[in-house]
Amino acid sequence: MSANAYPPVKIGLLGLGTVGGGVTRVLTRNAEEISRRAGREIVITHAAARNLDTTTADLAGLKLTGEALEVVDDPEVSILVELMGGYEPARSLVLRALANGKHVVTANKALIARHGNEIFAAASAAARMVGFEAAVAGGIPIIKAIREGLAGNRLAWVAGIINGTANFILSEMRDKCRDFPEVLAEAQALGYAEADPTFDVEGIDAAHKLTILASITFGIPLQFDQVYIEGISRITREDVAYAEQLGYRVKHLGIARRGVNGVQLRVHPTLIPQRHLLANVNGVMNAVLVKGDAVGQSLFYGAGAGAEPTASAVVADIIDVVRTLTADPENRVPHLAFQPDALSDLPVLPMTEVETACYLRLQAQDRPGVLADVTRILADRAISIEAILQKEPLPGAGDVPIILLTHEVQEQRMNDAIAAIEALDSIRAPVTRIRLEPLDAVD
Amino acid sequence: MSANAYPPVKIGLLGLGTVGGGVTRVLTRNAEEISRRAGREIVITHAAARNLDTTTADLAGLKLTGEALEVVDDPEVSILVELMGGYEPARSLVLRALANGKHVVTANKALIARHGNEIFAAASAAARMVGFEAAVAGGIPIIKAIREGLAGNRLAWVAGIINGTANFILSEMRDKCRDFPEVLAEAQALGYAEADPTFDVEGIDAAHKLTILASITFGIPLQFDQVYIEGISRITREDVAYAEQLGYRVKHLGIARRGVNGVQLRVHPTLIPQRHLLANVNGVMNAVLVKGDAVGQSLFYGAGAGAEPTASAVVADIIDVVRTLTADPENRVPHLAFQPDALSDLPVLPMTEVETACYLRLQAQDRPGVLADVTRILADRAISIEAILQKEPLPGAGDVPIILLTHEVQEQRMNDAIAAIEALDSIRAPVTRIRLEPLDAVD
Repeated sequence: MSANAYPPVKIGLLGLGTVGGGVTRVLTRNAEEISRRAGREIVITHAAARNLDTTTADLAGLKLTGEALEVVDDPEVSILVELMGGYEPARSLVLRALANGKHVVTANKALIARHGNEIFAAASAAARMVGFEAAVAGGIPIIKAIREGLAGNRLAWVAGIINGTANFILSEMRDKCRDFPEVLAEAQALGYAEADPTFDVEGIDAAHKLTILASITFGIPLQFDQVYIEGISRITREDVAYAEQLGYRVKHLGIARRGVNGVQLRVHPTLIPQRHLLANVNGVMNAVLVKGDAVGQSLFYGAGAGAEPTASAVVADIIDVVRTLTADPENRVPHLAFQPDALSDLPVLPMTEVETACYLRLQAQDRPGVLADVTRILADRAISIEAILQKEPLPGAGDVPIILLTHEVQEQRMNDAIAAIEALDSIRAPVTRIRLEPLDAVD
Repeated sequence: MSANAYPPVKIGLLGLGTVGGGVTRVLTRNAEEISRRAGREIVITHAAARNLDTTTADLAGLKLTGEALEVVDDPEVSILVELMGGYEPARSLVLRALANGKHVVTANKALIARHGNEIFAAASAAARMVGFEAAVAGGIPIIKAIREGLAGNRLAWVAGIINGTANFILSEMRDKCRDFPEVLAEAQALGYAEADPTFDVEGIDAAHKLTILASITFGIPLQFDQVYIEGISRITREDVAYAEQLGYRVKHLGIARRGVNGVQLRVHPTLIPQRHLLANVNGVMNAVLVKGDAVGQSLFYGAGAGAEPTASAVVADIIDVVRTLTADPENRVPHLAFQPDALSDLPVLPMTEVETACYLRLQAQDRPGVLADVTRILADRAISIEAILQKEPLPGAGDVPIILLTHEVQEQRMNDAIAAIEALDSIRAPVTRIRLEPLDAVD
């Protein structure tokens, strides 16, 4: 069904702070792709914020108010997006929106951990949805992964790095041999930690998220009050170093585990094996490890906070709700992610036009001038060299391996250079080329 | 809506090999949890296989046949699960099942990569769903993650280790300095590689999966014929070693990237930075890295093949289809993963009953007998010691740090031991305890 077959879905936003700004930016910037995915347009039409002067959101075309109830009670709004944070008035506004027949999407982990049972009961009674993907691990679609993607499993446990501030502090303590108070001050300066860091460093934020993860993992009600909570403020740099000597790394984990006698719910610093993937999740990143009886261990990694990663999760929830608003088969999730009539005719680039850096291994005669010939061939084609390794001759043979790392170059030009190199008398075997991807580059 | 409000959904299975056996096991073993999630029972009622003697599936209560058409044409079957593999007759049977009004779930990557456009068009025309989560990266819910979880993003690229056999071979070549033919033979002996390994080591299997990933990432039709494909058979152990010296690791990646002039689709050995999480995905494991404009980099890691990981994905698809078969609000994805009236009253275990190994750091007077006192306290409480580190005295103080690693012990007993240790005259500060999780333990 094309994006124009149904009228746009109207969103009302509560809160125009960091995440609110992210949600407005993402919905606006990606409007075209989002409507191709969802099958109809999604527009923010209403927004409420305490202070309209401090928002980073683009407010053009929005019906703005300082009074949240005006949004919650406006019959035009189909989906209320709650990004205020805190328990109240968020709880009352969400309940009222549900009673008014609106679906709700929220990023509020404290609200869901504490009042989720009440809110979901109200949502069921009103036959409305409450999306809360953004409440746990920011942009990582972990709620969807556990709730739907691993739905065939009996899940044994979940263990997650679900507070980026605490993970940043522990990563810095290890990498730079620094103590907790010093790194906390740095985290505050960088904006990774609040002026009052208690929620992050004492594990309360992680406990909110663990409460939610445990519920969807085991099918139990939300029970925040039963989580054992310990923070990282008493960990010293010596603890971190000694753990490393023993083969472990200190991470602040939320752990929910199904045992014979009950479910364990706990948040505390934890030694985990250095070689485990989870031990190598550094800085402000989040990761959640899930153990299922069929799937084994699965890991989900990504940005756990920030305006746009959180917006990524909020918008995914909005799209999920929008699909259910049009109860016909075409508004199920489209097979290829985008509606069938909205697929793109983007061409596939010929491999010859692809640009990558390359590793080249040459097998060359061990005599003067070979390297000069090779580098001349590359220079003539404007291919820059990043590194050269010239190794000892192979035993028995008079051949030496030459390894070159080039900067980015178009495949066609590299093909041409390789052909020229292989034509040299001094080159004794086909050139081995392995392309290189920096992965971390910004693009 | 409770699991009994609707009659069971009936599944017909084509293929009772490795994955077919896994699907029957998982659906049977986890029947209770699955119906609590899906809102109704799901039962395999029909199955077809060429050779019923070699199956590992539990066939009790199934209507068995050697003739696939009998399953495809049986009006009782609501969802056809195609696990035969290959292009034909899988394609014809799937198209016929859709024409017969059945939903389809398949693990067949070759079928979807080559004939997916035709199959999805038929599915849309028949208003039926085709689930294919199991076609890419086995148990990792990557189709759902990209298609729904990251739906708010404009995605820039996806790069994945999506063939476990090739990743196993490259991991072994690096870890053990061995050459390709030797490791391939080992992989074949271990059952990780087929007798004819071409599909895995020459990149064809990875290209099938990349074709599917690229489509759902960029919203383009499936275009298997346009993928550039290069395998790992020409990589030597020297290449692997030289790459490491340069700070990189050789991985066989499928890469789809959106460029200005078109989409790159390529499968080839690739140098990636050693420190990147993707470089540390070893053995037969799979991982997919996705870059979105809002979320940044996200990584999804898990088992890419095998009977039960693949079954995990097949069953998740079945549950997704089942939810749509009951078009009422209660059969949306339940907020807490399980239907509201099917939540469990599993108790939360008191922290005192949780068992973990522990790291203990003691600050002790530097005099004889302290360690004897401490180890006596632990021995009296049947707490075994895994390791002891006794460090140099801290500068200035007469105190020495003693670090102990214990075996698993119940929290209550450890609390008691710590209290006794802290009561010793020679112990000068509160004991630091950090709990330990091995993570890799089988449980």
